[in-house]
Amino acid sequence: MSSDLSRPSVTRWLAERACAIRREDLPDAAVTIARQCILDWFAVTLPGASEPAVTLLADELLSDGARPVATLVGRSDRTSAANAALINGTASHAIDFDDVNMAILGHPTVAILPGLLALAEEISASQDEVLAAFVAGYDVVCRAGALMSPGHYQHGFHATATVGSVGAAAACARLLKLDAETTATAYGIAATMASGLKSMFGTMCKPLHAGRAAQNGLQAARLAKRGFTSRQDALECAQGLAATQSVDFNPEEAMKDAPLDHHIANNLFKYHASCYLTHGAIEAGKAVRERHAVSSNAIQAVEIRVPPVTDRVCNIAAPRTGLEAKFSLRLTVAMALAGRDTSGIATYTDALTQEPELVRLRDMATISFDEALPEAKAEIAIRTADGTRLSAIHDAGVADTDLVRQGLKLAAKFDALAVPVIGGRATVLRAALTDFGGEETVGGIMALARGGMH
Amino acid sequence: MSSDLSRPSVTRWLAERACAIRREDLPDAAVTIARQCILDWFAVTLPGASEPAVTLLADELLSDGARPVATLVGRSDRTSAANAALINGTASHAIDFDDVNMAILGHPTVAILPGLLALAEEISASQDEVLAAFVAGYDVVCRAGALMSPGHYQHGFHATATVGSVGAAAACARLLKLDAETTATAYGIAATMASGLKSMFGTMCKPLHAGRAAQNGLQAARLAKRGFTSRQDALECAQGLAATQSVDFNPEEAMKDAPLDHHIANNLFKYHASCYLTHGAIEAGKAVRERHAVSSNAIQAVEIRVPPVTDRVCNIAAPRTGLEAKFSLRLTVAMALAGRDTSGIATYTDALTQEPELVRLRDMATISFDEALPEAKAEIAIRTADGTRLSAIHDAGVADTDLVRQGLKLAAKFDALAVPVIGGRATVLRAALTDFGGEETVGGIMALARGGMH
Repeated sequence: MSSDLSRPSVTRWLAERACAIRREDLPDAAVTIARQCILDWFAVTLPGASEPAVTLLADELLSDGARPVATLVGRSDRTSAANAALINGTASHAIDFDDVNMAILGHPTVAILPGLLALAEEISASQDEVLAAFVAGYDVVCRAGALMSPGHYQHGFHATATVGSVGAAAACARLLKLDAETTATAYGIAATMASGLKSMFGTMCKPLHAGRAAQNGLQAARLAKRGFTSRQDALECAQGLAATQSVDFNPEEAMKDAPLDHHIANNLFKYHASCYLTHGAIEAGKAVRERHAVSSNAIQAVEIRVPPVTDRVCNIAAPRTGLEAKFSLRLTVAMALAGRDTSGIATYTDALTQEPELVRLRDMATISFDEALPEAKAEIAIRTADGTRLSAIHDAGVADTDLVRQGLKLAAKFDALAVPVIGGRATVLRAALTDFGGEETVGGIMALARGGMH
Repeated sequence: MSSDLSRPSVTRWLAERACAIRREDLPDAAVTIARQCILDWFAVTLPGASEPAVTLLADELLSDGARPVATLVGRSDRTSAANAALINGTASHAIDFDDVNMAILGHPTVAILPGLLALAEEISASQDEVLAAFVAGYDVVCRAGALMSPGHYQHGFHATATVGSVGAAAACARLLKLDAETTATAYGIAATMASGLKSMFGTMCKPLHAGRAAQNGLQAARLAKRGFTSRQDALECAQGLAATQSVDFNPEEAMKDAPLDHHIANNLFKYHASCYLTHGAIEAGKAVRERHAVSSNAIQAVEIRVPPVTDRVCNIAAPRTGLEAKFSLRLTVAMALAGRDTSGIATYTDALTQEPELVRLRDMATISFDEALPEAKAEIAIRTADGTRLSAIHDAGVADTDLVRQGLKLAAKFDALAVPVIGGRATVLRAALTDFGGEETVGGIMALARGGMH
């Protein structure tokens, strides 16, 4: 099938492109970023596994029994690949600390990787095959997201869940080595299974969406392989995914070139355990403090300049709970200016929101919304007692191209999150994930990621 | 929570209403119709179980293993309730011969009953409890459908799948005796799981949608019971199910009185194995032939008057395959006028479409579209050789209130569909389903509905 640009066969084009991705053709930088995504996924999934959303879900699914072919990260159980995709996917989004891509305004890895790893474990696929499939799935989720952005997310669909299902299908289809027609069929099955409402944010359904995307994708790929039928054009057809769920339809955005040839180049990691749209302001605040060695009690005024989107997402003026703190620009900037840790998941407590030093900085902050700023960019300016104005600007929407620096930051994040869950095994697991690839299967890695200190 | 009519809490209102439904309060007619829905569901599910969509799906799911607590209709396997909901739900919609309700422009029973029966089998609920839960689920699916109609279906969402998920949750929540708050939570979980694109019609994904609705509802109710969180207002909230998936929002339609107090009173059964929108024309054609004892070769002209919606759905002028025949007004009317059987699933063959007698009647038929006609109403007029004009009109959108006559027709349909699958057991099963109710569990009925002639 050729790409007819008068009505582009986006679904089929994506399928053919994903089928053509080979491990040996991937740029080294893309492989490094993929390894970092995988490392970061284990980091956030290990503590996520003990969140109530996950334990309740696992209790429900495991009561049905299943052949134990796939590992549950951070738990002692093994179960079916489909169950593992759903439970591990939910775990990986449960603390909301997982990676981000602006093309889908959501979280690609938590949708793609859980089903892919479960499938790889069941069929004993090599780590190199997983790398290629992950990069393929990541690319599809971003391109399918770009096809429908920004209307899809703005209208109320949780893109992590919806286009995430298609990306998850892409990764699993690639691992199963399906041909382009069967791969497009898998995208169709995933598209009609895809769901997730943004109105569920703040409930356990939000992390469940990631698990559902992972499971949808896995099941879609496996059903397509068995001969289950669907359409070849589910993304672009009349009453298809885009037509029913977005006012936007941008095939040129979906099909345009990406850096390193793969959207994974634009992956953004979270280093602060707060809403991603606070990250630019936190980084700018840290820069002001560190560059100028300002102590917090010298600060007499704080100005925050951010894009308007932050007002709807993370502008709680006087947070009272740890959860609200994560969605408070003023408080997170206060934390940055006071030199407080913003990366720890245990940092954001109810008590923190009432600390006098932070409340003082928070209450002196003024926010201005600047339409010209991209979504994750922010400027912080302060005035000190002697009238000096100091400022810094940071765009958290641009991926770090210094992959060594990024790797060091992710290793520290991994240790902080993984050691409390699996103790000394974390070091071995980190080393294995840092070198992820080659002919070895994922079995050893999954065993290291099981729960308990044993 | 009170019903604030300035912004009606439809979700919570539906939950409270469903919680209040008791077997002993149900009108006898509602119980009779519920029993007929259950009988008809087994009739269509038994042959559906051997359709390729079902065997492929079952192969995939059963390979994972599961505790065998629920029966697969028309098959020899038992599996988990969640798997049974998905597989039996898909089987029940696979031959597209299942019941219909105009409030959702879709198929309520195939979304609601499969998960409910699987759950009832697992927890040994009584048949009386199943009846109350089924009526409750049926009511919720229709009211949630009415809330978003007609925009939801028109925009491309397969309502059987989407609002079907909420109805399925309602049935299972009622069987689990959840309180109103937990029930509304279950509706929220189901709403964010709900998906299904109309563009999938003609592929195996269409029947899969019914199975997914059944499974979504079952899992939502069980998760809510365990304490999984969601919203209490998922249908009506900003970026909720209605806001994201319909231009229509009609709380007054959702909350208005229904005949017999329950929407099940409006259930419509299919007696012809073709598209429901051909049913009015088929019945009118049969009436013309039978009332006036007209032989087909005396017919010199055929006029079909139908609403415009049929043009988009079932107006294939010269069908060439058995599947196309089911979506051809002209051919199905020709069959009715020629006294052919329209009820058998084996009737609609490729060869049938080329039979000279039918082709002659088909080609002389003219169709006029009348905006004033309701969706399932049709008039058929013929002119005979001597110039006589004979006509009849039938509205297939109005439920039969003669429940004895309806029961006899459904018994005949059941026998035609069930005997080829389970042989002599069909008679025993029909008797058990006709008397469905009481303190007995569903175990005996499910055992009778297993596959094989043994």
